[in-house]
Amino acid sequence: MSTNKVNAAIVGSTGYGGVELIRLLASHPYVEVTSVISSSSEGTPIAEGYPHLTEIRTDLLDGVDPQAIRAKADVVFLATPAGIAAKLVPDLLEAGLKVIDISGDFRLKSPALYEQWYKKTPADENLLAQAVYGLAEVYGDRVADVDLISNPGCFPTASLLGLIPAVAAGWIDPATIIIDAKSGVSGAGRGASLGTHYSELNENFRAYKINKHQHIPEIEQVLTDIVGKPVTTTFTTHLVPMTRGIMSTMYATVIGGRTDKDFVELYSQYYEGRKFVRVRPEGKWPMTKEVWGSNYCDIGFSVDERTGRVTIVSVIDNLVKGAAGQAIQNLNLMMGWDETLGLQFVPVYP
Amino acid sequence: MSTNKVNAAIVGSTGYGGVELIRLLASHPYVEVTSVISSSSEGTPIAEGYPHLTEIRTDLLDGVDPQAIRAKADVVFLATPAGIAAKLVPDLLEAGLKVIDISGDFRLKSPALYEQWYKKTPADENLLAQAVYGLAEVYGDRVADVDLISNPGCFPTASLLGLIPAVAAGWIDPATIIIDAKSGVSGAGRGASLGTHYSELNENFRAYKINKHQHIPEIEQVLTDIVGKPVTTTFTTHLVPMTRGIMSTMYATVIGGRTDKDFVELYSQYYEGRKFVRVRPEGKWPMTKEVWGSNYCDIGFSVDERTGRVTIVSVIDNLVKGAAGQAIQNLNLMMGWDETLGLQFVPVYP
Amino acid sequence: MSTNKVNAAIVGSTGYGGVELIRLLASHPYVEVTSVISSSSEGTPIAEGYPHLTEIRTDLLDGVDPQAIRAKADVVFLATPAGIAAKLVPDLLEAGLKVIDISGDFRLKSPALYEQWYKKTPADENLLAQAVYGLAEVYGDRVADVDLISNPGCFPTASLLGLIPAVAAGWIDPATIIIDAKSGVSGAGRGASLGTHYSELNENFRAYKINKHQHIPEIEQVLTDIVGKPVTTTFTTHLVPMTRGIMSTMYATVIGGRTDKDFVELYSQYYEGRKFVRVRPEGKWPMTKEVWGSNYCDIGFSVDERTGRVTIVSVIDNLVKGAAGQAIQNLNLMMGWDETLGLQFVPVYP
Amino acid sequence: MSTNKVNAAIVGSTGYGGVELIRLLASHPYVEVTSVISSSSEGTPIAEGYPHLTEIRTDLLDGVDPQAIRAKADVVFLATPAGIAAKLVPDLLEAGLKVIDISGDFRLKSPALYEQWYKKTPADENLLAQAVYGLAEVYGDRVADVDLISNPGCFPTASLLGLIPAVAAGWIDPATIIIDAKSGVSGAGRGASLGTHYSELNENFRAYKINKHQHIPEIEQVLTDIVGKPVTTTFTTHLVPMTRGIMSTMYATVIGGRTDKDFVELYSQYYEGRKFVRVRPEGKWPMTKEVWGSNYCDIGFSVDERTGRVTIVSVIDNLVKGAAGQAIQNLNLMMGWDETLGLQFVPVYP
Repeated sequence: MSTNKVNAAIVGSTGYGGVELIRLLASHPYVEVTSVISSSSEGTPIAEGYPHLTEIRTDLLDGVDPQAIRAKADVVFLATPAGIAAKLVPDLLEAGLKVIDISGDFRLKSPALYEQWYKKTPADENLLAQAVYGLAEVYGDRVADVDLISNPGCFPTASLLGLIPAVAAGWIDPATIIIDAKSGVSGAGRGASLGTHYSELNENFRAYKINKHQHIPEIEQVLTDIVGKPVTTTFTTHLVPMTRGIMSTMYATVIGGRTDKDFVELYSQYYEGRKFVRVRPEGKWPMTKEVWGSNYCDIGFSVDERTGRVTIVSVIDNLVKGAAGQAIQNLNLMMGWDETLGLQFVPVYP
Repeated sequence: MSTNKVNAAIVGSTGYGGVELIRLLASHPYVEVTSVISSSSEGTPIAEGYPHLTEIRTDLLDGVDPQAIRAKADVVFLATPAGIAAKLVPDLLEAGLKVIDISGDFRLKSPALYEQWYKKTPADENLLAQAVYGLAEVYGDRVADVDLISNPGCFPTASLLGLIPAVAAGWIDPATIIIDAKSGVSGAGRGASLGTHYSELNENFRAYKINKHQHIPEIEQVLTDIVGKPVTTTFTTHLVPMTRGIMSTMYATVIGGRTDKDFVELYSQYYEGRKFVRVRPEGKWPMTKEVWGSNYCDIGFSVDERTGRVTIVSVIDNLVKGAAGQAIQNLNLMMGWDETLGLQFVPVYP
Repeated sequence: MSTNKVNAAIVGSTGYGGVELIRLLASHPYVEVTSVISSSSEGTPIAEGYPHLTEIRTDLLDGVDPQAIRAKADVVFLATPAGIAAKLVPDLLEAGLKVIDISGDFRLKSPALYEQWYKKTPADENLLAQAVYGLAEVYGDRVADVDLISNPGCFPTASLLGLIPAVAAGWIDPATIIIDAKSGVSGAGRGASLGTHYSELNENFRAYKINKHQHIPEIEQVLTDIVGKPVTTTFTTHLVPMTRGIMSTMYATVIGGRTDKDFVELYSQYYEGRKFVRVRPEGKWPMTKEVWGSNYCDIGFSVDERTGRVTIVSVIDNLVKGAAGQAIQNLNLMMGWDETLGLQFVPVYP
Repeated sequence: MSTNKVNAAIVGSTGYGGVELIRLLASHPYVEVTSVISSSSEGTPIAEGYPHLTEIRTDLLDGVDPQAIRAKADVVFLATPAGIAAKLVPDLLEAGLKVIDISGDFRLKSPALYEQWYKKTPADENLLAQAVYGLAEVYGDRVADVDLISNPGCFPTASLLGLIPAVAAGWIDPATIIIDAKSGVSGAGRGASLGTHYSELNENFRAYKINKHQHIPEIEQVLTDIVGKPVTTTFTTHLVPMTRGIMSTMYATVIGGRTDKDFVELYSQYYEGRKFVRVRPEGKWPMTKEVWGSNYCDIGFSVDERTGRVTIVSVIDNLVKGAAGQAIQNLNLMMGWDETLGLQFVPVYP
């Protein structure tokens, strides 16, 4: 495709990922969202459930019908819960749509692994093979012109962008990698439960799904691809009493006596020309608020001579770079556009 | 002036108002910020104190020199603490700059009132008379082509937009108006103090400056202008444990048996064609989050037959519609542009 | 009853009010909680749903059986949702239990009003007449030795303690009272819903149930009792992004030119000897955090000569003075004990 | 000493640690706080700066005078900033006072290490040798009857209680220990700064002092003592947008194929009879809120067969078990009393 105008549909518009796509695409110069879709609220205006969209989005929510979507759109974003995209994608592709899947259904190449970690029926193995994993700064050159992009998970995005340059350079021992990740609560979606009840989370900090999170095999799959041999990692997720933001604090044993300065240089080179990764100077580490509402991933380092380990801090906004923003970045790359189109906003601070 | 390109300078760039102007103007199609100015940090990059601007704003902070500003800019925004603009403005106008003052120095027409409520030396009386009060949806037609705009305060913006249509129509008794206002903490600026210390404000709700807030005479001055005779009001400010957002909950005795529906219609007509005021349908009231990060002011009503009073709820983002956003809206109006230029973003939710 | 040992049962132990009773009663010198009761979780340890009670409360939850309760307890606290206590109380009284109802079922003397505002079936009219409204500092002398105490609502407690001395003294005009109330989210209980979902409430401030809240008739009933003729009031509730705490900011026209100092003296006299109401000196207003976790109600004033109105600020912890704490205070008064027994803890700060 | 009545003084009463000591000691059956001391606010009532203490603590703050303290008290708690206690303690001991130091001045046995990590002048080496490190559940038997107790740091308390049983049993490799710690903001004290400014911390998550925190040598000193040979560890601190609570998430390679169940049993045995450590059953990990306001330290485990590592989660309230609470526990042990005296309160939830 080479055009300067794309019509897009969003399936799962009433979730936080979907509504963030609406927000971001509203200022994309080449994309028009022609259909917002929700299987549960078809026929109602989206502003009924999301009054912040009053007078901004006045059309009614559509149902999930591949042919009808194709009649309105060229590209469809899937911001659906796990297990839905696996079923929908064949018909969407069949209808001639480009698909960018934000759910996790097409990330793991192995159906068995998917089933083990997601406890859902996996997508067709051929489609899994066909889907391109859209970690934009690493695999961005693979998504041009493809039909099916699998958008990375929020934790994998923050973690992998923080690890890959060092892993690829052989500067850290992959066997020693430990990822301690923290996320704002919006990552859990809009479904109400005791686990996301205000009075339970406010003034509270908790770990969850320790050693059981479905992003573990996703991270390992990529690291294994980079290293060229199997990598396992320790990964822990925590819930922070805030709405947006992910920090991955990562630990690994350094090979070859590198310094903070070395890491800053290595990463600066690796990400040269990629606007959305910002490498912090020596002795500085990013905070989640510094990327809030934006598509940036900011990274900082601390090598400790005493222990021989490096601590890498990587932050993103889970709903932007960790979901809707990177999906749009992938659309840009797929279309051959500048990857920053529609995403050039400044983080909201404070 | 009639041009499609304006160079702007920001004095007070290292405060929250200044940094918000930088954020918003970064996506304005006709404005370039050519000078970011700070008397306290001249010569350093702004990203040093605000790392979220890393690689976005790499120039060094300028000092406060009217001639140097004029050499770089056509318009200057003053996002300075109270008492500074009063001194700066004469030289800035003299240098041939257009001035939009976000501080409160030019809001009150009476120097005596300013001195009484602000405890600072007032600006020159002629300049006070010259300054146009830029409450965009009410006085927007007065700012075209003027040299000095006084941007309204955050509380007055939320409160007056919620009151004026009813006051102007004679539907509520001005003598009975009570304004109970609540603000996020960013309104207090970036200066560290016990009163803005995290552990003191988190999980806390407090009132402050009861009957003493400097926005009281500003609100009364405008209401008096609308009504045509002196109005005094009761106004209370509270601090909410959140960063952004203002809600004014307002009470007044209804004249003439109006219903919720009547109020919705009255306000919808009053604000017809003004994109940034959204009137909620009967039985719905806006929350602060529904305008977060945007230039909207959302308003809702509840008439109580039992008491004969109406409760009006009005919300804004204090740093956008309550400061930087409305300042840009005023620039747009001053330049004869569409008032929404550079401000058409969707509120960030959640 | 005159004894120094009481066995207590708690119905609704798995709600926030119930679990707060458990916390507070754990340090009461004369009360032992012999049965924690939950209709929904009978037979399981309460620490399963509330791990903070691990090793503190290891017995299993009992079911709701009046005879079984009587076998274990002398007094029963009802911390149940609206509509339950109305049905339970006859059998509990019949079984010989003293009842302290924390739900709203026995607060309104008029069954019709209850039905109108609560949308539930009211309790028996004779029982409603029999129930003593336990606003401890005002009606505390009425609860001695009674069988059925109706514990006041959280908003009424904060509001009435802040209004009654002035209303009783004829210092403010009851017809002009406006109550702008704000509450932490725990007041909404533990039931998960979109309205209490973390990402929706964090960094947000909202009004709800404007002019429709069921605490309105409760407040009016008491004010009417104090004044001796019908009083209607305007009352608005807001949700603050915090867990605990209520502030009522109240407005009324002052009669007879009283000053801040006059109000401080009047209230200090009215509450003399009552440890749980603290009147702040002139020019000082309490914050919610200053009573956090404690049974205090703190009150401050600001008379405005310009408008002739007084602003009264009253704060409580909604789960303590607004629920479990005042219920225990009522038990103390009912038993003829010092009202502060088991409640003499310092607010948790910060 | 063997008595059932102790008079206590608190130096540094106007800090968060001091004011928490006041809160907790108010309900201690054997201790009376006879002097609250502040070098900066001598002669004023403490409730002026801490209105939550209104009518609770009405005496005036004393100055720092060892003889005057001795005239009023038997024991003195030092809740002072780093560097103060080192200077004060000789005179306090000389005056015949028992001293419990909550600052870090007496934790490190090596003056050189203290100087390196604290950047302050160390205490006298003999006094450092004399001071007993009061990690109550590990070294509690050493504090009986001593004159100088050094209360452990907040992070070391959470981390060491979570590590020591496994380290002592040889179940984890000390060389592989990585501690990822998170703290509420109250740990930073009451001093206002940009780093603790509400608008900067709210809706934000940050790391700080990576590999530079002064609690690193404290943790290593204890682990070295337990293991019997030098241990270095990787330790990172983060700031959570909440007031109270610490979580240490800790990683280490397991030796000998132990399971979650094994860890639960090992820790349950190690802490048998110690009320303030609660070991969670398999598959459960504590949240910070579950110990909020209390002296508990709760611990949970997850062994990952895939990586051969264990993840240990340990939580405390930084101001209680991490400061004032453990200091009182140490007083109890020093006096030969039950260690739980005055500390038997239930965590505040929610």
